[in-house]
Amino acid sequence: MDFAPTARGREYGERLATFMAERIEPIEREYHRELRSLADPWVVLPVIEKLKAEARSEGLWNLFLPEGGQEYGDVPGLSNSEYAPLAEQMGRSFIAPEIFNCNAPDTGNAEVLVKYGSPQQQEQWLKPLLRGEIRSAFCMTEPDVASSDATNMEATATVEGDEIVVNGRKWWTTGIGHPNCRFIIFMGLTDPTAHRYAQHSMVLVPKDHPGVKVERLLPVFGFHDEPYGHGEVSFTDVRLPLSAVIAGPGRGFEIGQGRLGPGRIHHCMRLIGLAETAYDLAARRSVQRTAFGKPLANLGGNRERLAKARIAINQARLLVLHAAWLLDTEGLQGALSAVSQIKAAVPAMAQEVVDMAMQLHGGAGMSDDFPLAAAFANARSLRLADGPDEVHLGVVARLELRKYLEENR
Amino acid sequence: MDFAPTARGREYGERLATFMAERIEPIEREYHRELRSLADPWVVLPVIEKLKAEARSEGLWNLFLPEGGQEYGDVPGLSNSEYAPLAEQMGRSFIAPEIFNCNAPDTGNAEVLVKYGSPQQQEQWLKPLLRGEIRSAFCMTEPDVASSDATNMEATATVEGDEIVVNGRKWWTTGIGHPNCRFIIFMGLTDPTAHRYAQHSMVLVPKDHPGVKVERLLPVFGFHDEPYGHGEVSFTDVRLPLSAVIAGPGRGFEIGQGRLGPGRIHHCMRLIGLAETAYDLAARRSVQRTAFGKPLANLGGNRERLAKARIAINQARLLVLHAAWLLDTEGLQGALSAVSQIKAAVPAMAQEVVDMAMQLHGGAGMSDDFPLAAAFANARSLRLADGPDEVHLGVVARLELRKYLEENR
Amino acid sequence: MDFAPTARGREYGERLATFMAERIEPIEREYHRELRSLADPWVVLPVIEKLKAEARSEGLWNLFLPEGGQEYGDVPGLSNSEYAPLAEQMGRSFIAPEIFNCNAPDTGNAEVLVKYGSPQQQEQWLKPLLRGEIRSAFCMTEPDVASSDATNMEATATVEGDEIVVNGRKWWTTGIGHPNCRFIIFMGLTDPTAHRYAQHSMVLVPKDHPGVKVERLLPVFGFHDEPYGHGEVSFTDVRLPLSAVIAGPGRGFEIGQGRLGPGRIHHCMRLIGLAETAYDLAARRSVQRTAFGKPLANLGGNRERLAKARIAINQARLLVLHAAWLLDTEGLQGALSAVSQIKAAVPAMAQEVVDMAMQLHGGAGMSDDFPLAAAFANARSLRLADGPDEVHLGVVARLELRKYLEENR
Amino acid sequence: MDFAPTARGREYGERLATFMAERIEPIEREYHRELRSLADPWVVLPVIEKLKAEARSEGLWNLFLPEGGQEYGDVPGLSNSEYAPLAEQMGRSFIAPEIFNCNAPDTGNAEVLVKYGSPQQQEQWLKPLLRGEIRSAFCMTEPDVASSDATNMEATATVEGDEIVVNGRKWWTTGIGHPNCRFIIFMGLTDPTAHRYAQHSMVLVPKDHPGVKVERLLPVFGFHDEPYGHGEVSFTDVRLPLSAVIAGPGRGFEIGQGRLGPGRIHHCMRLIGLAETAYDLAARRSVQRTAFGKPLANLGGNRERLAKARIAINQARLLVLHAAWLLDTEGLQGALSAVSQIKAAVPAMAQEVVDMAMQLHGGAGMSDDFPLAAAFANARSLRLADGPDEVHLGVVARLELRKYLEENR
Repeated sequence: MDFAPTARGREYGERLATFMAERIEPIEREYHRELRSLADPWVVLPVIEKLKAEARSEGLWNLFLPEGGQEYGDVPGLSNSEYAPLAEQMGRSFIAPEIFNCNAPDTGNAEVLVKYGSPQQQEQWLKPLLRGEIRSAFCMTEPDVASSDATNMEATATVEGDEIVVNGRKWWTTGIGHPNCRFIIFMGLTDPTAHRYAQHSMVLVPKDHPGVKVERLLPVFGFHDEPYGHGEVSFTDVRLPLSAVIAGPGRGFEIGQGRLGPGRIHHCMRLIGLAETAYDLAARRSVQRTAFGKPLANLGGNRERLAKARIAINQARLLVLHAAWLLDTEGLQGALSAVSQIKAAVPAMAQEVVDMAMQLHGGAGMSDDFPLAAAFANARSLRLADGPDEVHLGVVARLELRKYLEENR
Repeated sequence: MDFAPTARGREYGERLATFMAERIEPIEREYHRELRSLADPWVVLPVIEKLKAEARSEGLWNLFLPEGGQEYGDVPGLSNSEYAPLAEQMGRSFIAPEIFNCNAPDTGNAEVLVKYGSPQQQEQWLKPLLRGEIRSAFCMTEPDVASSDATNMEATATVEGDEIVVNGRKWWTTGIGHPNCRFIIFMGLTDPTAHRYAQHSMVLVPKDHPGVKVERLLPVFGFHDEPYGHGEVSFTDVRLPLSAVIAGPGRGFEIGQGRLGPGRIHHCMRLIGLAETAYDLAARRSVQRTAFGKPLANLGGNRERLAKARIAINQARLLVLHAAWLLDTEGLQGALSAVSQIKAAVPAMAQEVVDMAMQLHGGAGMSDDFPLAAAFANARSLRLADGPDEVHLGVVARLELRKYLEENR
Repeated sequence: MDFAPTARGREYGERLATFMAERIEPIEREYHRELRSLADPWVVLPVIEKLKAEARSEGLWNLFLPEGGQEYGDVPGLSNSEYAPLAEQMGRSFIAPEIFNCNAPDTGNAEVLVKYGSPQQQEQWLKPLLRGEIRSAFCMTEPDVASSDATNMEATATVEGDEIVVNGRKWWTTGIGHPNCRFIIFMGLTDPTAHRYAQHSMVLVPKDHPGVKVERLLPVFGFHDEPYGHGEVSFTDVRLPLSAVIAGPGRGFEIGQGRLGPGRIHHCMRLIGLAETAYDLAARRSVQRTAFGKPLANLGGNRERLAKARIAINQARLLVLHAAWLLDTEGLQGALSAVSQIKAAVPAMAQEVVDMAMQLHGGAGMSDDFPLAAAFANARSLRLADGPDEVHLGVVARLELRKYLEENR
Repeated sequence: MDFAPTARGREYGERLATFMAERIEPIEREYHRELRSLADPWVVLPVIEKLKAEARSEGLWNLFLPEGGQEYGDVPGLSNSEYAPLAEQMGRSFIAPEIFNCNAPDTGNAEVLVKYGSPQQQEQWLKPLLRGEIRSAFCMTEPDVASSDATNMEATATVEGDEIVVNGRKWWTTGIGHPNCRFIIFMGLTDPTAHRYAQHSMVLVPKDHPGVKVERLLPVFGFHDEPYGHGEVSFTDVRLPLSAVIAGPGRGFEIGQGRLGPGRIHHCMRLIGLAETAYDLAARRSVQRTAFGKPLANLGGNRERLAKARIAINQARLLVLHAAWLLDTEGLQGALSAVSQIKAAVPAMAQEVVDMAMQLHGGAGMSDDFPLAAAFANARSLRLADGPDEVHLGVVARLELRKYLEENR
């Protein structure tokens, strides 16, 4: 048992930390202020492109992409457990993931295209994505059904001759508002008569294709997360050649499965970083503010709350690192329960830590003077996105009970 | 022991319920949609004025104002425990409190003016306020200090000859964005050498007086709560005649104390209503949405969560009603612990119930398709406004331990 | 709305409080010490009989028995909401319920016999029970099935000619170890072909009847609750005349329903008293013990914990009082949800408050130097006895969802 | 990062698992039944000595003793992180720790003697202890003061010429009831004028020395944990030669510090094992018992509770393993916060998991038909023993805030 990172992991960690401390942290507050001051905040400020170029030239780029991605660009090919601490660091900032070209859903989309994309799909979409020239979206969740149960899906991807025809309404399409968003991976029902896991397809849909319409951008609490956004998108008779289907019709679920493991580890590690940011603000506030003649840290249960938050973050981090290690050593099947465990545990932990930090900040914590309210919305939304807590707890229980059910047979 | 309302209480309850069901509920969703669609949402839509006129003409008006308020208008003079269930009903809607002229901070400001205002102050500010012609704000909390400890206050209200000079910076001034907001009750330090509870004054400041500046309107989780708003307000050498001081210099704390009891009961009862709205949405959703072949109500722990929410709401309501009854029968001193108990317990309960409801709604719950995210922000902010949870728990503990400390002497 | 007790309720409350403060509290610690020192603690110490005689002669006797019970003895006939605060007081002591002849399951058994017993049954069992001469037990729960679902019941009460034949194994038969325990009310299956609620019978079984065997006395944690005890009891071909069946065969469920409402209110109010005792010990300890130079009350989150416990107890008490009032004013049907709400909420609250008190006492809290460990076992066991938390939450949810399901039809 | 055990760790793990599965599990239930049936349960049943001999001969003996202990016996000298998973396994059984000679407080006492004992002390006490011939106790906590603050200690160890004189009253002396308990390590105040950390001494006191009296054996929730027990012990003018002082007068704190790290890791890992046992029982029960036509696993929130318990156990285990690794790699100073984190987190987790398991077992869970009530008492007591939760949270907060306080200077 060894909790130390690999030499390569440590080295990337140090370089990333330096980059963030020297180049992102100093400008982030001003970045948000500037963006908020714009009449149209759905833009990429020049500082982002500048930092992206620097990150890329220094090799802090596409770090999420595992072994196998190297042929599409200059990618170190880190393991999940090497990348996880880097994702945590990026999660401390709202803009870092984009700067390092490690933002969701581009990461998941890139992984899908590396693994399942045709050479043409890779040429057209993957390569510019990995160069950070374009961005992408992923359309899965639907407004009219409980999407926690994927078999509820109503949108369709129908094969008609050598075409695939896409129809339906999706929402919570993150990143669709970004000015550079160029394509969508759309999931829809192709053949309801096929085996339960072979009914759906994933289709590459250009964002500006006729029939694609961003109906509205949804707020999360009151935030729109500009310039990324979360869209409701309608697809009306969107016709594409069959070559737009990833890996061929009917393979949507199979592809979807593959993206879940790493994606959830990335989400969870970024949330660990988010929780650390909130914790850091809370601890600092607790020694700086004074009430009733004492620093807040010395009032009532505040120290206990900080200590419990520290423990909660540490436990959560270890759980995610362990899941990443399982994914590396045993593959998705061996990490199935672990991945659902982190997805059920980490967003809830982050929500609580941020809530605690907010309380220590008084009214300021709810305003935009601190990144806490936005962090709260982020953590809260991840208790729903990518499967609600309850679904993941159900998966954990199902896998746990398997052996007892056999025993009882 | 009798948990039934008085005849008068029941009658007002029924009339209020009918008014809300027939005239507010049917238009509320559209009201919000219209307001959101405006370039400038800091306005009073005509429907509000229409409903206010109806409510007033039907005597559903100023219901919060206790016995003694009748001389300033047509006011039934209900007791706290009679009014409490009405406040709960109003709390189910974002606009009802204004329609019935029972919105904070106007309610507290009116009570202050009834009890402590000079005839001239009552004529100038109280009467139009009770007629619903103008609205008001209250300036207490400050950005630069922990305002949970009122003795931290840095703003000043200095007596200079026959003038009072107001300086300082306040924030979380709710209602300051409302187009009809005309005056502010400002609290500031007058005499630091006086007895601890005689150092502060409350001053009536016209909102458009020279030296008063709304620096910005603060978001709460991304919400600005248009057209009310929560402002940061600076006061720079605001000079007013001494007659603008309520009850004379040095009586700020004394006045402040008096407004706290009823005000907290109103807040808490409105939150009970808010929690009921969220509960109602959750219960309905749980039978209407289906996943994995079952209505959500039949999945996992959802029924237990609904049952626990029901219990939590019922307990909280009884606690507030009991506090209101204590306030009626024993006055503020006898209700001191009870009032802090509800303030510590009810917002936290409401936050949890709304969070549960949100989870049952999936992504929709966080968007503006449902009033849940706004309700969450509201409940969350009341864990800070009017004294954070921790301060109220401290008050409860202090009062509880008194007898044990005496015993131990 | 009036939270004040009736004049009669207040008067009984005062007399009971005086009796407890002057005659029970001063001897209780010594009582337990003496009992523990005995080789055979399954005895009634003389002090108990002495205090019973005093309580009876002063009319503090059978206070639980509602209107209608007066013909069987000198009983005030209090309403549920009048009795509830008295039950709370008794719950502060382990021996008070017996001293006032208000101990479970005798109370429920007496109510059953008042309402459903034949004159002969009343003469033989009810009258000596109400005189405090004998004690009784109730056999419902079974070791081999999940008794939370009453339809799982396997024990039988078979009609054979003019006899009823009782067979089966029951456990958690509280009070069976008491030397004065003379009869058992046994519930068993009579006719599996009858309507679901008409299959069972309640039978009066003399404790020393052939075929009745107390197999063992079960510990709760490590406590045996001498001299009451919780027994596992086997019934082997126990033959009794049909006149031993209460209200005739097939009416077991109907009778059982009736005992649940008041019984649960009694249990819950006694637990409120138990929680108050624990709270009182905790508060006293917090000002008397010193660590790190401060009384415990001034360390970390201790004040917040005390304040939260105060709020939790107060909320729970109000919930029970409200349920009692509903039972008085609307009968069992109208109070069904309320009764399940208190049963789900109050034992869990009491467990937490006692746990908090224990923590403040350090090791002493777990020993028998304080009544906390026994109180914990008591509160914990009531999260299972009389229906586990989960079953009651299920009842609450079912009743809540009824209207939404109709709406949705 | 590598979560896999070392080859040696894995091998010991497998041999231990086999031994436990084949030789301990099959007899444990009967062992407890037999012990309970005895008039005097303060004995070592022959099966224990038999299994001890087998464990010793197979090298599954003194596994807790780190590198450096080999000269005192056949000890593998495992690291903390190698031993931790073995402690978890032992923690699944109440008797395993003794069988493998890894029971507290013998383990801590042995470590102290290895590190600080004089050759004579090692000869007299350490060697027979490591051979499993004798057992020992540790006297620290006192009944009359809050022992969470060690500076409260009132017992004395006074140097008089070439003698040390021991006086005072201790309690929660675990293991003092064991028939083989031969010596006590006693901590007392030697020089109140010395530096705060140089005032106390640790003295080796033979259990049968004149002046040593076991006043009583304390119950924990009604359990006496025979044949180990938790005693209250008085020391009255216990005179010993100065050679009985470990490492010389005034070094008590220094020695005490050293035993805390490994000791807390052992406690916590055994609690992980305890929680696993409870979890295992709960999961099995949930598929075997049926109510309302379904296995318990399919009712209400039971699956969610099992899943949350799984997550809680896994997180806690990782936190302890990480603390063990820190202790191995950075020493006690580097692991200080980590050790307090686990001590604050793990017993509370174990208590909750056991409580959940108990609830799934209904009444049976509280009886001695299952080891759950005893497990509960064990977990609960470890929220107090070795420093209450609150003290450890305080340590964590203090270490966390250090850098913020410096920053703020």
